[in-house]
Amino acid sequence: MLPALIARLGAHRVLTAREDIIPYGFDGTATLKQVPAAVVFPASAEDVSFVLRLAREHGAPVVARGSGTGLSGGSVPMAGGIVLCLAKMDRVLEIDTANLTLRAEAGAITQKIYEAADAAGLFYPPDPGSMKISTIGGNVAENSGGLRGLKYGVTRDYVMGLEVVLADGAICWLGSKCVKDVAGYNLRDLFIGSEGTLGVVTQVLLKLLPRPAARRTLLATFTSMEAAAAAVSAIIAAKVIPCTLEFLDRKTLACVEDFARVGLPRDAEAVLLVETDGHPAAADDEAAAVESICRTGGAAVVRRAADAAEAARLASARRSAFSALARLRPTTILEDVTVPRSELAGMVRAVQIIAERHGLQIATFGHFGDGNLHPTILTDERDTAEMHRVELALAEIVAETLRRGGTITGEHGVGLAKKPFLRRQLGDASFELLRLVKRALDPDGRLNPGKIFD
Amino acid sequence: MLPALIARLGAHRVLTAREDIIPYGFDGTATLKQVPAAVVFPASAEDVSFVLRLAREHGAPVVARGSGTGLSGGSVPMAGGIVLCLAKMDRVLEIDTANLTLRAEAGAITQKIYEAADAAGLFYPPDPGSMKISTIGGNVAENSGGLRGLKYGVTRDYVMGLEVVLADGAICWLGSKCVKDVAGYNLRDLFIGSEGTLGVVTQVLLKLLPRPAARRTLLATFTSMEAAAAAVSAIIAAKVIPCTLEFLDRKTLACVEDFARVGLPRDAEAVLLVETDGHPAAADDEAAAVESICRTGGAAVVRRAADAAEAARLASARRSAFSALARLRPTTILEDVTVPRSELAGMVRAVQIIAERHGLQIATFGHFGDGNLHPTILTDERDTAEMHRVELALAEIVAETLRRGGTITGEHGVGLAKKPFLRRQLGDASFELLRLVKRALDPDGRLNPGKIFD
Repeated sequence: MLPALIARLGAHRVLTAREDIIPYGFDGTATLKQVPAAVVFPASAEDVSFVLRLAREHGAPVVARGSGTGLSGGSVPMAGGIVLCLAKMDRVLEIDTANLTLRAEAGAITQKIYEAADAAGLFYPPDPGSMKISTIGGNVAENSGGLRGLKYGVTRDYVMGLEVVLADGAICWLGSKCVKDVAGYNLRDLFIGSEGTLGVVTQVLLKLLPRPAARRTLLATFTSMEAAAAAVSAIIAAKVIPCTLEFLDRKTLACVEDFARVGLPRDAEAVLLVETDGHPAAADDEAAAVESICRTGGAAVVRRAADAAEAARLASARRSAFSALARLRPTTILEDVTVPRSELAGMVRAVQIIAERHGLQIATFGHFGDGNLHPTILTDERDTAEMHRVELALAEIVAETLRRGGTITGEHGVGLAKKPFLRRQLGDASFELLRLVKRALDPDGRLNPGKIFD
Repeated sequence: MLPALIARLGAHRVLTAREDIIPYGFDGTATLKQVPAAVVFPASAEDVSFVLRLAREHGAPVVARGSGTGLSGGSVPMAGGIVLCLAKMDRVLEIDTANLTLRAEAGAITQKIYEAADAAGLFYPPDPGSMKISTIGGNVAENSGGLRGLKYGVTRDYVMGLEVVLADGAICWLGSKCVKDVAGYNLRDLFIGSEGTLGVVTQVLLKLLPRPAARRTLLATFTSMEAAAAAVSAIIAAKVIPCTLEFLDRKTLACVEDFARVGLPRDAEAVLLVETDGHPAAADDEAAAVESICRTGGAAVVRRAADAAEAARLASARRSAFSALARLRPTTILEDVTVPRSELAGMVRAVQIIAERHGLQIATFGHFGDGNLHPTILTDERDTAEMHRVELALAEIVAETLRRGGTITGEHGVGLAKKPFLRRQLGDASFELLRLVKRALDPDGRLNPGKIFD
């Protein structure tokens, strides 16, 4: 198989030396890893098709990946085989200002797409935490979210079309530049979030929006978590939908302040970071409404960012939460449970009780506006006894989430990390339906085997 | 089979007399019809499951339908069998103002859903032309669009969850109240727009938005179609996204004015009807921008609706376009081709040339903002020679659409009407992928057979 790969792609696009391929054996979880047999770098959909046909002949599993920033083990090559790294297919191919679309290769960095749109006065809203290094293909594979989900939705909401290479090597275009298109089943959305188990995405056609004219940033601190959650409910009840509505608990707060030094108050029990955007009058009115609701709801401090620089400092402090927490203990496990918005306060409290019961350090931050929480377990994978308690705590967090009508993963994907819990969330009928679809599209189980389900 | 159906559902929920079942044999196309064997009215998902299991035992095809307002023959029972009419499952079950969701049975009328949301200060944006009588289940089956697609998207963009009964009678919930949820493949979106060929939707969970605070309505007339299309491009280029951006050609205009008498100018070659909405300042600024762009672009008249009553009159005149045209000749064929926005002017002109070449009356109106056109052929199905020319013209319109990167159906579905053209649009690989999915989910081909593909 290797000679054929080298003949097609050239030796510089095929890695097999152990020291070269180790970096392609893990993702952002860091705890899940496995060394593949080879790593190849296709330059086109036709290259990808070639690799898939070759893998089929040789019975080799294929795991597609981009930058490997995933947080559920979705791109970890557990079954060995070939890693198909799309990082070199990284061009933004077209910005169509008449149709408000952008077409890019799957390996294009999300930040580069955001900037290309911005340069044309347009806006690509999805902003996963890893956007400076993650690829758009990875975002599509995991249906990545981000901080703007409440108002703007997630990656799926901006994908108009995909070029996908199927397990048998066939190359398909799914979707078009048409805003409305109901010709045949919507298979585009089936591939979005399928974690590389149904096909390999090689090109994406994205929808862009006009860039919002104004943005206002507020910070509100609360002396109780319940008060912060009640303020979020009151904001939504007032029919205000901010662009971002982020939450940090006391533990995260202190840690971020140590790390970023932006003047966050260390004594608050909870902090909300709120951004409104759009027409300047709308952004102002919404910011004023949020401020008034927070004050009425007992916020200790409400501070408006004086200028764009302060707003950027606050946003970047929030974005540093995971990195800041990761410094505290050798192992950081970032959870991704999500509940309906009305269940937020109860869920955060439940996580705190679970942490206390098992004697664990769990800091929680996340996207309060869309119910997406990131309880972050700070631990040490070398400590077997503690890791056992971590397992128990994770199972309890998942059970609590499902009891509240939530989901085991809001934006990170099932991958390996959430596989044990999927059937419980979906129920038998829906779970079997997933397997039916997998068998139809990848009958030999060649694409990213062992992910999502066994 | 009939005794078992009557035993389960009661005699009043099973129709078999010819005069009772004829109304369930056609849809909004009126030209496509077939008499089913029986029409049954389930009261629950369990009833639907019972009917599907019974149909499986007896090898009978099942066609689900709501109000039968579809425009592609999607709910016409071509293969006989059982019509599963969900019209009596019509309750709005829950409005959750904390999570901004609405849950309803599949047979609930779309207008009723809109009004239930509105009464809570909320907004369900999708507004298919038939919304006063169509059901939400039908909207989901066809992924219906409407006039607000440009800014607000289509039915799919508001479906958070579905209860679906599969071909084997299993009942699944797909999706949740979570704004972000990536647990497993997205099968919810696979069922949306699948035209009843993969399962029967029995309940929907919809996303609602805050009701826009203000709306402004403008009418602009142009002496050439090109100028109207150029104005639309200029509006988008100015980064203004109106809520609706509708277009009527001269023929439609005259006909609507005869019918509705709202003072539309009969001498214009093209009329744009534009609505902006949102924060009052944003709606005002956008309306002012649209007005100025239309004037600069050579509009003969630009008129702002003086008040809500005039705005409603203009909107309802536009909504009456199809009914108004349908009075002119015995047979009305409503096309639904859609092109990227940048191709609009060329596409409308091409339709006019095709009409002239074949000596046919074709009036065109539609959703200019999202590229969704409704060329309407006014003809007489008893005139064999003219109907032959209609067939030729339809094929040419489709070819022209595909040549411009468009789709054969923007919002009506493939059904029977567009079946002959689907493979040409999708290409062999994508087309075969649809069949693969159909075979996996409905191996006996029992659900709505003969629709989308053979």
